[in-house]
Amino acid sequence: MENDQRSSPVDSTIRRLKTVEGHLRGVIRMVEEDAYCIDVIRQIQAVEAALNKVSSKILEDHLNSCVITAIQGSDKKERERVLKEITEVFEMSTKV
Amino acid sequence: MENDQRSSPVDSTIRRLKTVEGHLRGVIRMVEEDAYCIDVIRQIQAVEAALNKVSSKILEDHLNSCVITAIQGSDKKERERVLKEITEVFEMSTKV
Amino acid sequence: MENDQRSSPVDSTIRRLKTVEGHLRGVIRMVEEDAYCIDVIRQIQAVEAALNKVSSKILEDHLNSCVITAIQGSDKKERERVLKEITEVFEMSTKV
Amino acid sequence: MENDQRSSPVDSTIRRLKTVEGHLRGVIRMVEEDAYCIDVIRQIQAVEAALNKVSSKILEDHLNSCVITAIQGSDKKERERVLKEITEVFEMSTKV
Repeated sequence: MENDQRSSPVDSTIRRLKTVEGHLRGVIRMVEEDAYCIDVIRQIQAVEAALNKVSSKILEDHLNSCVITAIQGSDKKERERVLKEITEVFEMSTKV
Repeated sequence: MENDQRSSPVDSTIRRLKTVEGHLRGVIRMVEEDAYCIDVIRQIQAVEAALNKVSSKILEDHLNSCVITAIQGSDKKERERVLKEITEVFEMSTKV
Repeated sequence: MENDQRSSPVDSTIRRLKTVEGHLRGVIRMVEEDAYCIDVIRQIQAVEAALNKVSSKILEDHLNSCVITAIQGSDKKERERVLKEITEVFEMSTKV
Repeated sequence: MENDQRSSPVDSTIRRLKTVEGHLRGVIRMVEEDAYCIDVIRQIQAVEAALNKVSSKILEDHLNSCVITAIQGSDKKERERVLKEITEVFEMSTKV
């Protein structure tokens, strides 16, 4: 996501997130129109599932760019940092 | 969430969801400005955590209104339906 | 799960949990036999999915026994307590 | 986790998983002794949180061994396989 050659993954991420935003606005409309609580919860869960997919896609792009570069590079500290971050987002993903 | 006396929980849900929508728009801006992938994933996880809180709040309101009414009512089918839905959203919550 | 007439759901819960325990022991054996890390993680995720199903089943039984009793009972405090617990386990379920 | 020099992470994983197994056996005992349903669900959630920690630890060890080796190696297919697996367990982690 960090240089011109990778504009395509960034565009795709923006498009996906805007779709989720539209979905979320639909949920807000449902609540405004007094939709049934359980239906609202189900739609919120659908929004979360969509967000999970976006995160997985971003991670996939990240692994195939920044992470490869860092691991093949000579900076040990940078390598450790990049790998630590992956463990951290993995750990957090089990909590949300 | 389904009658006038309960307008306050509905308003509060709308306000919470609009905050999440603002947060999500902020994430889209981050991606547009080429933010670091891992930071984007972390912000998406924060959005999901916020959505989980909204869902819990909606469920709480639902339990204290519709569910009490259904269980104290005389319609066995309705009672079963209402309880089954809670198990379903609980089960789904472990998957998103 | 709390009186003799409900011995069957309890038995079923015990049987399910013992199956999960067997699965978990299998995962420990995999690690002892130097299985591939990712395969171990996948099996741990399968164990968690199985535990989620057991929790949903217990909640379902709970809703259809204790919760109905509490809500139909005259003790307002007890009713509130029982409903609050459901919101709490729902909220926690989004975090594990 | 796959060669002698790494016996220590493996031992630590086994120890952690055996602790979780003991915890799970405690949950089975609770059910056998007719514990309150919600307390059982809470303990199952605690077991899952512990399993998540074990998974994160295994992933961390994996990133710092197999993944570094694969990415620094010359086999492009192997590199892709290893990175794809990480995305897969991440995606699954959002579902359990």
